Amino acid sequence: MESEQLYHRGYCRNSYNSIASASSDEELLDGAGVIMDFHTTEDDNLLDGDAASPGSNYAMSNGGGAASSSTHLLDFLEEPIPGVGTYDDFHTIDWVREKCKDRERHRKINSKKKESAWEFTKSLYDAWSGWLVVTLTGLASGALAGLIDIAADWMNDIKEGVCLSAMWYNHEQCCWTSNETTFAERDKCPQWKSWAELILGQAEGPGSYIMNYFMYIYWALSFAFLAVCLVKVFAPYACGSGIPEIKTILSGFIIRGYLGKWTLMIKTITLVLAVASGLSLGKEGPLVHVACCCGNIFSYLFPKYSKNEAKKREVLSAASAAGVSVAFGAPIGGVLFSLEEVSYYFPLKTLWRSFFAALVAAFVLRSINPFGNSRLVLFYVEYHTPWYLFELIPFILLGVFGGLWGAFFIRANIAWCRRRKSTRFGKYPVLEVILVAAITAVVAFPNPYTRQNTSELIKELFTDCGPLESSQLCQYRSHMNGSKAFTDNPNRPAGPGVYAAMWQLCLALIFKIIMTIFTFGLKVPSGLFIPSMAIGAIAGRIVGIAVEQLAYYHHDWFLFKEWCEVGADCITPGLYAMVGAAACLGGVTRMTVSLVVIVFELTGGLEYIVPLMAAVMTSKWVGDAFGREGIYEAHIRLNGYPFLDAKEEFTHTTLAREVMRPRRSDPPLAVLTQDDLTVEELQAVINETSYNGFPVIVSKESQRLVGFALRRDITIAIENARRKQEGIMLNSRVYFTQHAPTLPADSPRPLKLRSILDMSPFTVTDHTPMEIVVDIFRKLGLRQCLVTHNGIVLGIITKKNILEHLEELKQHTEPLATSWYYHKKRYPPSHGSNGKPRSRVHYVQLIRSFQDGQGEGADGSEEEEVCLLDGSDL
Amino acid sequence: MESEQLYHRGYCRNSYNSIASASSDEELLDGAGVIMDFHTTEDDNLLDGDAASPGSNYAMSNGGGAASSSTHLLDFLEEPIPGVGTYDDFHTIDWVREKCKDRERHRKINSKKKESAWEFTKSLYDAWSGWLVVTLTGLASGALAGLIDIAADWMNDIKEGVCLSAMWYNHEQCCWTSNETTFAERDKCPQWKSWAELILGQAEGPGSYIMNYFMYIYWALSFAFLAVCLVKVFAPYACGSGIPEIKTILSGFIIRGYLGKWTLMIKTITLVLAVASGLSLGKEGPLVHVACCCGNIFSYLFPKYSKNEAKKREVLSAASAAGVSVAFGAPIGGVLFSLEEVSYYFPLKTLWRSFFAALVAAFVLRSINPFGNSRLVLFYVEYHTPWYLFELIPFILLGVFGGLWGAFFIRANIAWCRRRKSTRFGKYPVLEVILVAAITAVVAFPNPYTRQNTSELIKELFTDCGPLESSQLCQYRSHMNGSKAFTDNPNRPAGPGVYAAMWQLCLALIFKIIMTIFTFGLKVPSGLFIPSMAIGAIAGRIVGIAVEQLAYYHHDWFLFKEWCEVGADCITPGLYAMVGAAACLGGVTRMTVSLVVIVFELTGGLEYIVPLMAAVMTSKWVGDAFGREGIYEAHIRLNGYPFLDAKEEFTHTTLAREVMRPRRSDPPLAVLTQDDLTVEELQAVINETSYNGFPVIVSKESQRLVGFALRRDITIAIENARRKQEGIMLNSRVYFTQHAPTLPADSPRPLKLRSILDMSPFTVTDHTPMEIVVDIFRKLGLRQCLVTHNGIVLGIITKKNILEHLEELKQHTEPLATSWYYHKKRYPPSHGSNGKPRSRVHYVQLIRSFQDGQGEGADGSEEEEVCLLDGSDL
Repeated sequence: MESEQLYHRGYCRNSYNSIASASSDEELLDGAGVIMDFHTTEDDNLLDGDAASPGSNYAMSNGGGAASSSTHLLDFLEEPIPGVGTYDDFHTIDWVREKCKDRERHRKINSKKKESAWEFTKSLYDAWSGWLVVTLTGLASGALAGLIDIAADWMNDIKEGVCLSAMWYNHEQCCWTSNETTFAERDKCPQWKSWAELILGQAEGPGSYIMNYFMYIYWALSFAFLAVCLVKVFAPYACGSGIPEIKTILSGFIIRGYLGKWTLMIKTITLVLAVASGLSLGKEGPLVHVACCCGNIFSYLFPKYSKNEAKKREVLSAASAAGVSVAFGAPIGGVLFSLEEVSYYFPLKTLWRSFFAALVAAFVLRSINPFGNSRLVLFYVEYHTPWYLFELIPFILLGVFGGLWGAFFIRANIAWCRRRKSTRFGKYPVLEVILVAAITAVVAFPNPYTRQNTSELIKELFTDCGPLESSQLCQYRSHMNGSKAFTDNPNRPAGPGVYAAMWQLCLALIFKIIMTIFTFGLKVPSGLFIPSMAIGAIAGRIVGIAVEQLAYYHHDWFLFKEWCEVGADCITPGLYAMVGAAACLGGVTRMTVSLVVIVFELTGGLEYIVPLMAAVMTSKWVGDAFGREGIYEAHIRLNGYPFLDAKEEFTHTTLAREVMRPRRSDPPLAVLTQDDLTVEELQAVINETSYNGFPVIVSKESQRLVGFALRRDITIAIENARRKQEGIMLNSRVYFTQHAPTLPADSPRPLKLRSILDMSPFTVTDHTPMEIVVDIFRKLGLRQCLVTHNGIVLGIITKKNILEHLEELKQHTEPLATSWYYHKKRYPPSHGSNGKPRSRVHYVQLIRSFQDGQGEGADGSEEEEVCLLDGSDL
Repeated sequence: MESEQLYHRGYCRNSYNSIASASSDEELLDGAGVIMDFHTTEDDNLLDGDAASPGSNYAMSNGGGAASSSTHLLDFLEEPIPGVGTYDDFHTIDWVREKCKDRERHRKINSKKKESAWEFTKSLYDAWSGWLVVTLTGLASGALAGLIDIAADWMNDIKEGVCLSAMWYNHEQCCWTSNETTFAERDKCPQWKSWAELILGQAEGPGSYIMNYFMYIYWALSFAFLAVCLVKVFAPYACGSGIPEIKTILSGFIIRGYLGKWTLMIKTITLVLAVASGLSLGKEGPLVHVACCCGNIFSYLFPKYSKNEAKKREVLSAASAAGVSVAFGAPIGGVLFSLEEVSYYFPLKTLWRSFFAALVAAFVLRSINPFGNSRLVLFYVEYHTPWYLFELIPFILLGVFGGLWGAFFIRANIAWCRRRKSTRFGKYPVLEVILVAAITAVVAFPNPYTRQNTSELIKELFTDCGPLESSQLCQYRSHMNGSKAFTDNPNRPAGPGVYAAMWQLCLALIFKIIMTIFTFGLKVPSGLFIPSMAIGAIAGRIVGIAVEQLAYYHHDWFLFKEWCEVGADCITPGLYAMVGAAACLGGVTRMTVSLVVIVFELTGGLEYIVPLMAAVMTSKWVGDAFGREGIYEAHIRLNGYPFLDAKEEFTHTTLAREVMRPRRSDPPLAVLTQDDLTVEELQAVINETSYNGFPVIVSKESQRLVGFALRRDITIAIENARRKQEGIMLNSRVYFTQHAPTLPADSPRPLKLRSILDMSPFTVTDHTPMEIVVDIFRKLGLRQCLVTHNGIVLGIITKKNILEHLEELKQHTEPLATSWYYHKKRYPPSHGSNGKPRSRVHYVQLIRSFQDGQGEGADGSEEEEVCLLDGSDL
């Protein structure tokens, strides 16, 4: 178990003190988010004396621990010890204990119910609080999504010009009252002035083009600068997409403040700025984070959820469904996304509530109607033509493209995120954001497909060419002959507009591919869904037009001959765009059912599910061939979060005894005996070791297991006894048994600690295959498990041990090059920083935990401080 | 543990031998299905010597058991013992063991993969077999559903007349080529002759009415008689809806033949007959059974699935999704149904495959196009008017009605099913079916709403009144003025047709309510979805028309004034019908999300999800207030299947030691010592007890746990050793340790049984709260769990013990009346039978198991035979 000590207490790369000398065995990598060096914090104990401060939101009034809820019944005369059964920041929760605690609470309320009308009302409130909290979450998520949509739309148009009649109108609203009949002319309504018109007084010509260009870059940089500064100063957790962290939190990890009100506020504001700045990012992932923040904040209104980490995670699962629901206008898809991608523990009750939250959010958003089309998303589409069997070939090719893109993107982005840490460049996040925003703006402006909002681009690509469509993409030659010709001869030869558009789209594709790799991971809120979909949509549209032209010029090929009748519109390029978008998104995230359902809800027709499925499946398989992780799992691994993936199968044949601590070479397991330790000896054990908990055995001779006591609980209990119980001295006997041991007459009063003893620790035998152990950890959400042999305690397996073991096995099985690369990149040097003061909330938290660490972390030179965030990387 | 003996070996009420004397402590109740007395078979062992006959499909080539897969590695020199690791009929599978077995198999294939091209092909085949089997299942389910739809449609029309131009046309197809313009006139095309026209030569008049009436009853009775006879003779498992049994099977129980080819064939045929007979039943539940049969049959083509019970259940989960998909044309709803209602173990991979299977099935069905409208269901609807907030009041009232109906139906149906057993009536299933069919036909014919097919009735009720609608329900007064008036003044006063229809609908409602209670549980395939939906649709349409008329006559009420503008069609009675249908279905099945999604897929509009959710939620809450079980859970409990419901929360505070066997008053636990038993002693232990397995301990003195050995495995191993190993005698020492114990020089060769020892049995301490134990059993799918105290074995908890415990707790907490009633009804006398020969397949199986039982079941007078089916109840 000594090797655990190596990992105890993460290393704090604190910018204020500039501890720049790197400890070479630390992982300093982060991806989209701030540095959170969790790899080393699992099962750590900061063990500051006042960890259970009265103001802590996590403090439980009911002590005793719940796994021992029934032993608690036996000891009901003893007062519960305040603070027992709570968690420190960056710790893993014990799902079993939390669920038992909730049932205990439920039983209490139920038994009191009949006592009075007030208690009955309270029990009703308790029963309904689950529905209330998801309703509130849904309402808030929908409203925030609407706000973000409207604000981002307006700010996006600000880059091009202003509405003179009313500043707060965006381009479309400004020209709403225009009398022009075609869309193209309506866009040029007199109320809307481009910056060149306003400043130079002329709408055309090279001068005005340069003016508009300049203003575009100016606004883009302003927005990006504002966004990154807000994030940096007020809420560092607000950056990135948030989904990797939310997955980790839902799997049972505690990151305080990650879903707090500051994060919510700053993420909402900076998301608008980031989207408006024209960076290659989307708002879908961050919307999930925003919804989860709402869920977390509202759960504090209800003691049922605020005091129970497991129950709170049910609310967060529902909230993430609401987030996707408003992001894509797909309530069912949102629920499936929460089920498939995000959630860890998803009981049926949560399914139902998630669905409800998703619906409420969708309806709020629809009543806000941010796009003016009474749809939830900008790119809702309706196709009316069927697809033909031979089209599966291009669809599958799009799937292959999506899978390749996904694999490439994940590798490139992870490599870049790793490099960001290892070069000096990573020290200047503001500069990085501005640089990327500048490059994006400079390159994006000349190309109409990159200049416009990415959502609008996707909408244009998805939309089929109808007679009213004025897009360049629909300038088919027959179109010139009037709309009559168009409908009569839909198998159209492309006009010059289409050819020009094809070139522009190709350039846009390359641009998007490159910029997205560098954008995802910047210190601004950034989602991946929209850029991925845009790349897929561009590729799909290009393929779609190519197939269409092929079908026109070679309509006597056996493929087309059979399917495309003359006069029938047999290829829908918009459908190809949609299939491509789904394929690329699938390649990046490795979502399957939820993705198909989300896109299905965009089109509303069962017709197109088969092409979608074919593409998404191909994309997943192709992507999996290059590496089984999706981008979120890759970022979780990069950041070293303690996340035990439920999807990955454990395929090795190791046994529990090979994984357990202590290993053969380690000193023996630190155990407590049930009735012959003194307080002094107990404290010595606690001080000399840094383990999270200790098995309690019958006696040194017969090492049979009695129970398990958590370090934190023991410390709190001793502290408490010293303060409150008289006669407890250093040589007081400590006992975990039901009755006090017989003691000599002159010995001091013994200390009974049975109430903090977990009488039902999980055990496995040393011969248990690790696949079963991993299964137990996943399904029951354990924190640790004891290993026995013939009833005798041998060792302990923690979630961290399992993750380390998985990592080791991966190193062995993966090809050498990757492994070497990983080793080389894994331990880059850390860096000092500029040391500017940070956000108020997090600042306080940081300082406190840091001071505690300095004051207490004295035992062992390896013990360092967990650092919440590293200023140098923000 | 002695109390277990009471339950060992169920009591066979065998019709051939007419053991009619009832053992009064046996449960003879069954619901929809045949008698399967599973309550007593959990963890039993029939232990016939040749249970692992070579031809058995469940025989594993790899012995050794998989939970000890790694101990297996240590003993690789020992040959695997054939038959070890298989299951008997009516036994619970061990999910953990099965999953380990599969991983072991997977590792083997993977390690061989690089050896040769052939092995590589095999590994590819293995990897793809999952997709193949779900594709085949989807194809077959879709095709069968199409066939059933077409056949049932045709046979349903046969009751009224025949098509002269082509016998095999149904009414609609027959009149397809008719030149009439309106639907009403087209229905009377000359090619289609009613029976009266054909026999009496006149289409009108009282004589022809009576003739048609007679023919209707004649055909209904013929179909019903044929159906029940086919079920009775060939495949008794084909009766009922099948969903309770499928839930039980998916939770890890083995019922051989329940998903076999005979059941498939007979269920398909009799389903058509039963639907055509006009009984108040639907084809949706049985379609799930049919799809599961397909899944089971196809899984035999792939060793990956045929040899692993856990993997096979993944296929069955996907198959049930395909079943619902074709039943309602709702692929996503089908997947959610499988997830929410049917499945027990549902990993994400299964989600994806279920979705695929559901889609394939839906597309096959659509290409068959059984309804000629390129829709998957008859009652696909599209509404175009919105709903208003005040309408939530009637919608919620419909929800209350649905909940009340559900609670009432469940109680009444269960009571009737119980009564069927306790009276002589239950002995004549054929007579019962004919009687119910006759009453149904006689009462149904005069009322047009009950005469027609229930699906068509639902379609008519769902459909909104358009200008082309000729239904009596749409005879509004303004309608008389021509279609122009209709569109101008949609808030219509009801005409005489509507009033007449209202009366007929009320009568139909009462009729359906009564008949459905008596129909569900008959010995024909019978689904509940359609009758429940019909009842809800009738109630909903009545409410809808009432609200519509209220809005017309009181359009200045504050409610209507605000919402219903003059000239706007503000009430859609069809929507009310749909909401009512969902509410009633929800009340009966207690489905939530899947139900909403299924109905959402019928309408295709997100608009109507809120009314649906409001109604379904109300319905569930109202229903739950009267009893938390849905109809399927109620039938599972009635039939005593060993099903541990994952949805029900365990809310009591009992500890593991209160549930474990042996209880205080029982003799001590039967254990084996690891190295000092002889073969003779071991056999004595096996013969004297009837436990399913035995804990192996270090020695009698130190009762520390070493492992767990299954009775079946020990017997097979001894049998095997006697046959193959020389020198094994009765006084040979048996040892479970790694090395043979030191023996006197003259002792015979010892027998090593380590390979059958499960070295990693699941253990909990005696202080573990039962809520945790139940959680472990549910999530890991355990069969048994050992209870220890300080490392010493105290007892054992099996799934059956838990179910008994839950039942006990329920008896304590439920009101006295119910409990008394239950006790009284629980042990009715059993009955003799007529003793006719049965289906070939089952006959053989029966006879064999019966003979085995007679030949071997000699130890203990309490030991009786499990009986697969009881002729008297069919």
